[in-house]
Amino acid sequence: MTTTTTNPKTTTNIVEESAFLKELVLQVRAQDHYGVYRSWKDELVLSNFVVSKEKKSQISVEGDVDSATQLRILCFYRAIASSIEKQTGKLCQAVIDLSHEGFGWSIIWTGRLMVVSRTLRDAQRFGYPSLKKLAAQGERLVASGIKAIEEFPKAADG
Amino acid sequence: MTTTTTNPKTTTNIVEESAFLKELVLQVRAQDHYGVYRSWKDELVLSNFVVSKEKKSQISVEGDVDSATQLRILCFYRAIASSIEKQTGKLCQAVIDLSHEGFGWSIIWTGRLMVVSRTLRDAQRFGYPSLKKLAAQGERLVASGIKAIEEFPKAADG
Repeated sequence: MTTTTTNPKTTTNIVEESAFLKELVLQVRAQDHYGVYRSWKDELVLSNFVVSKEKKSQISVEGDVDSATQLRILCFYRAIASSIEKQTGKLCQAVIDLSHEGFGWSIIWTGRLMVVSRTLRDAQRFGYPSLKKLAAQGERLVASGIKAIEEFPKAADG
Repeated sequence: MTTTTTNPKTTTNIVEESAFLKELVLQVRAQDHYGVYRSWKDELVLSNFVVSKEKKSQISVEGDVDSATQLRILCFYRAIASSIEKQTGKLCQAVIDLSHEGFGWSIIWTGRLMVVSRTLRDAQRFGYPSLKKLAAQGERLVASGIKAIEEFPKAADG
């Protein structure tokens, strides 16, 4: 077994080690209606979520957000919603609202409670520098969502 | 002055009498970037929100929701958000999430509180049988939103 733990891009087993990334893989595979990814490794399935700083600067924010990027953003927030759901037992709903200029909102709620709400900007450039950072950001949002549910249990049930 | 109070379509002064309809007129006029409606009466500005049952049955729910209808739905929920905002002092944000099949969500929130959340279906056919019913439905949603803020004040501030 090769050990490349210092390589931030495709460390072996990084997906295995992160409950959030495993959830994200499920979300992406759920959209794979034609089985294109069926034989792909999990790391490869998530590879489009990794966008380097240089690559970001090359992506124009002039036009529309292409539908593949929109779906990727939705998968990211659905994975957060689903992770929160598994840990709290509360049904969570995720919605992305994007203007054509790449600005908008990502929203996750349960009952009457807004579990996660973030503004999106330059959505055309959505991505993280590494799978590790993607996992960290996802887990951070999951944790903050769970904290919100603990803080406002009545609204979450409402 | 003509009295046509039983005519459900364009009762004189119906807009004047409804704080919600006045708010809706403001929202629609705010989108009127080329001043097309500038000389129009308020009732005329709102005329596209009135869709009879017969007309609805003629609108196909097969294709996309056209952008004028999407904007009309957004104006409706923005008017609700704005009315709640004026009565409670809480900043409200409205978002519409529509799939291409006319299904989706309309969401209004303030702080951590979901003030209004409704599922949309057959959005292609959005409209009310009369201005009076439009006003009643808008006011109903405004009242339920204010009630939610009163019920969960901490989440609304959160």
